[in-house]
Amino acid sequence: MREVAIIGIGMTKFGELWDRSLRDLAVEAALNAIDDAGCDRLDSLWVGCMSSGLFNGQEHLGALVADYLGRTPIPACRVESACASGAMALRGAWLEVAAGQADVAMAIGVEKMTDVSGGAATYGLAAASDRDWEAFHGVTFPGLYAMIAVDHMHRYGTTREQLADVAVKNHSNGVHNEYAQFRSKVTREQVMSSTMVADPLRILDCSPITDGAAAAIVVPLGDAKSFSKQPPIKIAGLATASDSLALHQRKDMCAFAAATEAGERACKMAKLNPRDIDVVEVHDCFTIAEICVTEALGFFERGQGGKAASDGATAVDGKIPVNTSGGLKSKGHPVGATGLSQVFMLARQLRGQAGPVQVKNARRALAQNMGGTGASHVVTILEAV
Amino acid sequence: MREVAIIGIGMTKFGELWDRSLRDLAVEAALNAIDDAGCDRLDSLWVGCMSSGLFNGQEHLGALVADYLGRTPIPACRVESACASGAMALRGAWLEVAAGQADVAMAIGVEKMTDVSGGAATYGLAAASDRDWEAFHGVTFPGLYAMIAVDHMHRYGTTREQLADVAVKNHSNGVHNEYAQFRSKVTREQVMSSTMVADPLRILDCSPITDGAAAAIVVPLGDAKSFSKQPPIKIAGLATASDSLALHQRKDMCAFAAATEAGERACKMAKLNPRDIDVVEVHDCFTIAEICVTEALGFFERGQGGKAASDGATAVDGKIPVNTSGGLKSKGHPVGATGLSQVFMLARQLRGQAGPVQVKNARRALAQNMGGTGASHVVTILEAV
Repeated sequence: MREVAIIGIGMTKFGELWDRSLRDLAVEAALNAIDDAGCDRLDSLWVGCMSSGLFNGQEHLGALVADYLGRTPIPACRVESACASGAMALRGAWLEVAAGQADVAMAIGVEKMTDVSGGAATYGLAAASDRDWEAFHGVTFPGLYAMIAVDHMHRYGTTREQLADVAVKNHSNGVHNEYAQFRSKVTREQVMSSTMVADPLRILDCSPITDGAAAAIVVPLGDAKSFSKQPPIKIAGLATASDSLALHQRKDMCAFAAATEAGERACKMAKLNPRDIDVVEVHDCFTIAEICVTEALGFFERGQGGKAASDGATAVDGKIPVNTSGGLKSKGHPVGATGLSQVFMLARQLRGQAGPVQVKNARRALAQNMGGTGASHVVTILEAV
Repeated sequence: MREVAIIGIGMTKFGELWDRSLRDLAVEAALNAIDDAGCDRLDSLWVGCMSSGLFNGQEHLGALVADYLGRTPIPACRVESACASGAMALRGAWLEVAAGQADVAMAIGVEKMTDVSGGAATYGLAAASDRDWEAFHGVTFPGLYAMIAVDHMHRYGTTREQLADVAVKNHSNGVHNEYAQFRSKVTREQVMSSTMVADPLRILDCSPITDGAAAAIVVPLGDAKSFSKQPPIKIAGLATASDSLALHQRKDMCAFAAATEAGERACKMAKLNPRDIDVVEVHDCFTIAEICVTEALGFFERGQGGKAASDGATAVDGKIPVNTSGGLKSKGHPVGATGLSQVFMLARQLRGQAGPVQVKNARRALAQNMGGTGASHVVTILEAV
């Protein structure tokens, strides 16, 4: 197979974008990526979106976006793995270029979660959990992640303060992200006194409902310079793994075993290990998720993820900077777009364009995007070349 | 890239399967494919489904099916291109094996369309059309295909009798298909006096609402004999193309331009042309669709598709046998499963297992699967080796 590189990245602002539709958002991110690459050719399109059917009454996004981008009759397909749909779209584009079936492929992640019919956001998101055994009985994602948090606190002594410190760090980083939904710092006290959602998780432990899109253009690494003047960013590793949708079916609720599996496979492909990574974006849909996932990926020992957040180990100048973009917590979480927005943010780090949150000498970056309570994980390792 | 072959195929019965859920159907088809291949290894899973969100309140099918199949933590992802989702799943598995990222990949297509909330089947299907410019204003798929039929009749003199003859032929073939939803012959008179749905299309011009699933297992062609005793079926060509979702945006409503594009690309890949094909399955969601698509793929001149159906050119013993399985019309149309059920039926033809509808010396087969009114097309060319 051919090695693959990213030559263009694009995003929309994340937020409540009442004046833009699903297709508007996808096209805006795509055009920004084309502008960034300076390459107008497109052989194929992969659109990642979780639930445009439930949110917007619209499926069939591959052709829809190809059309509104003015690119029919190119191959176009949607992929969906709940909140990991964005990274799955990149995986599709990567596979197609790797297999030699396309030379210039675009991955777009998009979700339009406001301006939807009554109750649809919560009902739609619940479709990422096991409908028959979880959602039907009334449990929602804050409830599921609250169970994970309680388990982690009970087994490892993780504290309410440590959960808060994840939010404090991510909001502090997000202040510098012009694409972020919430560019405001929060204090530990504000997090801990915010509205209770599902004990112990409060509203400032939760990522928000967001509209937005992000995109990336990939080409064969060997030909990257002929397509774009941007420094190519190599996809050194990309792996996905699955677990049961239902949390109660897992042996260990806090383990995020599929994150470990996908991370190990991506590292093996990239011939690297977690110590070699300079900067990381993880899927902090809830504060507890960042703690569990940084452990599952091997950045910290089991039970030490909360301490790491409080100690500054995951800060921009820490041992392993995590979510310098502000993460889902501050940047926002348009579910199908999140995986590609992580890639966007890490590409800026590897290009040295991350401004106040730039990690010095960032050469290797890792993105972890997940669906549900971790039934789907995609880990992508990017390398400046 | 590596050449890829199918070594196993599986299906469920198609019909109103009130006793089986979405996940039951997917797993049943998958287990049948595993049985057929005699190969228990599985490296990766691609699930094609159009609208499990709207029909069943359940997204995230990749991990869901991997779990119920007992195969976590393998990579698992859902793809969606409306009614072309099944063939798109095969495309994903094919790309992954071609790129060398998996050796044994399974594609499953599934849809559960009965036992859904009130009105959901029509509302869900409309999500394959342009929600903002078509569905919102009340037009449904029978209405859209009726416009295509009227245009074809007006321009080419296609008759009401010719439309009926497509249904008569497909039901006549479907009698022999043990997986088919409707194993009953119909006469021209019965079709032409059946309930009007959208003039000129009557109920017997329309494919039904169906539950079902189909699956295929692919491996590198060079290694096929080491995985299975089944005669390998080479994927000689596989291509997809897109068009506008909205019918009114097309230059020519009857042209199905993306079918032509995908067909030409698939033929080029297979180094074949339509004359070399022995047996065909096309996406006859409505009788007029079979007429337009057999023209678009180059089997007949423009305007001659209706005449071909009436003349017997598309019969089992005709010039080019079309829909020997009974097609969507008789076999049923669980939208996400249809593309893989076409592959299943053609694989039986190439193995010489098609019974009374066996096409003599069938060596090369073509499947055309489409989404919406033709905004997505996937053309797959299979070859006995």
